[in-house]
Amino acid sequence: MLVSPNMKRKKIVTIGGGTGTFVVLTGLKDYPVDLTAIVAMSDDGGSTGRLRDEFGVLPPGDVRQSLVALSEDGDVMRELFNYRFEKGDMKGHSFGNIFISTLEQVTGSLDKAIEHIGRILNLRGQVVPVTLSKVKLIVELNNGKVIQGEDAMRSYQLVSKFGIKHMRLEPKARANPKAIAALKEADIIVVGPGHLYGSLIPNFLVRGIGEAFAQSKATKVYIANLMNRYGHTDGFTIFDYVHALENTIGKKNVFDVVVYNTRMPAAALLTMYADEGEPIPPAVAPKKGKLKLIGADLLSRNKVVVSANDPLAWQRALIRHDPQKIAKIISRLSRHEKISH
Amino acid sequence: MLVSPNMKRKKIVTIGGGTGTFVVLTGLKDYPVDLTAIVAMSDDGGSTGRLRDEFGVLPPGDVRQSLVALSEDGDVMRELFNYRFEKGDMKGHSFGNIFISTLEQVTGSLDKAIEHIGRILNLRGQVVPVTLSKVKLIVELNNGKVIQGEDAMRSYQLVSKFGIKHMRLEPKARANPKAIAALKEADIIVVGPGHLYGSLIPNFLVRGIGEAFAQSKATKVYIANLMNRYGHTDGFTIFDYVHALENTIGKKNVFDVVVYNTRMPAAALLTMYADEGEPIPPAVAPKKGKLKLIGADLLSRNKVVVSANDPLAWQRALIRHDPQKIAKIISRLSRHEKISH
Repeated sequence: MLVSPNMKRKKIVTIGGGTGTFVVLTGLKDYPVDLTAIVAMSDDGGSTGRLRDEFGVLPPGDVRQSLVALSEDGDVMRELFNYRFEKGDMKGHSFGNIFISTLEQVTGSLDKAIEHIGRILNLRGQVVPVTLSKVKLIVELNNGKVIQGEDAMRSYQLVSKFGIKHMRLEPKARANPKAIAALKEADIIVVGPGHLYGSLIPNFLVRGIGEAFAQSKATKVYIANLMNRYGHTDGFTIFDYVHALENTIGKKNVFDVVVYNTRMPAAALLTMYADEGEPIPPAVAPKKGKLKLIGADLLSRNKVVVSANDPLAWQRALIRHDPQKIAKIISRLSRHEKISH
Repeated sequence: MLVSPNMKRKKIVTIGGGTGTFVVLTGLKDYPVDLTAIVAMSDDGGSTGRLRDEFGVLPPGDVRQSLVALSEDGDVMRELFNYRFEKGDMKGHSFGNIFISTLEQVTGSLDKAIEHIGRILNLRGQVVPVTLSKVKLIVELNNGKVIQGEDAMRSYQLVSKFGIKHMRLEPKARANPKAIAALKEADIIVVGPGHLYGSLIPNFLVRGIGEAFAQSKATKVYIANLMNRYGHTDGFTIFDYVHALENTIGKKNVFDVVVYNTRMPAAALLTMYADEGEPIPPAVAPKKGKLKLIGADLLSRNKVVVSANDPLAWQRALIRHDPQKIAKIISRLSRHEKISH
């Protein structure tokens, strides 16, 4: 894309974590925009959980995925960071997680560790942990059950059956000042796609993030998931996701744009995905007409190169967003997409 | 040091591995010379041994020490590479070893892994594994005992009692062509300091290395250890070390210069070191007068900053060479130091 060197780059901030954010960043990286990825800090499962338990570090997993997405370095360093050990002492760990957590210990700060790794990976943008507080996600259900930790929540299958009464981080988390600054200066803020309770809401449970988001003059975009998640968001419409987010943020009608998929995934893929969930029904215009709805075929039809050492690739290999299709839509948005607020 | 930019840089090649090579490289790095570190590939102990066993990789430990020595990057990356895990799944591993071994698996070659890490660490010189064959050191003693592996040899205390009949690598190792080329083009080749049987001789057991060394027009220097090693080199003079090396190389009088220490370490340090060995007696001129002998106070009196996460620093903290003193002597040598050959 040709741009004048003096043209002011659009500032785009993503909020999320995990594979959804990876996809958005991967697409936007090729545009002449100024990218900041704000990532959730409540993951406590798998390799990340083991590193937290053993070393008392902040969760590296979501940081790693965003770093890899934004890297302009060759494939080798990206593959190295996503390399997952299949045997030996490090079995189950991703090398990038070990790298981030060790460097956090050496430098004494995750922020400094990210700076160093950013130089190594030649980053096209910056990665900002939403908080540098060490927190755990607590989910209280309406039946009184309290789920301790994000990993436990993700694997608990009766969340939607009982309904969520309250979510919080323990202890209370202070916002990373870099995250607040990025939200304030953003032209566009993109929330999602990603697991609603695991990757998106935990960002807004950090004190000050919801407020900074609501007060920002940026165009606020929600990119809807392709599929509901059994046991968590069964039967949700796109607006149920938006409302759940707005409830956490504490302000109604805070989103300006919703981007959603209109194309039904192939039947064969739906069968493979059957244990995970079902497609989210396409949007129907919301009652008050405050949201700009952008429906499009967002499905990826690229073949995914699945490395034996990157099991996450299998997740991405099923039903997933196309990074380029998402990026094209986001890059065309301006700071002023509000509809008659 | 001021040099004309067009002045041809002296090509200095070190042969060794471990702490001795680390010290030489650390000192020479500050001189305007062209440095190549050829490192032994027979280590099979500790973190290195576990990685070899679990992943079938080449030994990363000696490579790591040379990479760190030659790095011009700030302290953070050097500290990261030497970081040793004290708990958890990675307990006992050095992070740098894990990095090198993982990158070897991702790239499919230790040489490529070293290239990538060289860029990350901003190397002042190159590190060349003496062979890319996967080998084990075999030591046959005169009493018929066969020691399998370098680690087993290092911890066997009766090597000098029975005497070594034969040392070899299994399977036979082919020389890394980069090592042969470096030896051929060198102005000065520095062997040692380092464990005679563990760090020095294994380099010359690789087919073609001894021949390339002997045929090189470089000035060949042996830097003598400060101390003999109990059970291995008890009672050795400096010339016993030289002869043992020349026997392996297969050519007499191949060394041109021997650099040795003339200052007795402090009594308190000798007491601390008592379980390890005793000082090597200062050189007396060899019979045939072919060797240039350079005796000097080579002892380090710098305080060592010992990090809890770098237990190797304790080894370096005892009786050790001063990198600057060694580098000063080596840097003043020319390609033509031969005495009446």
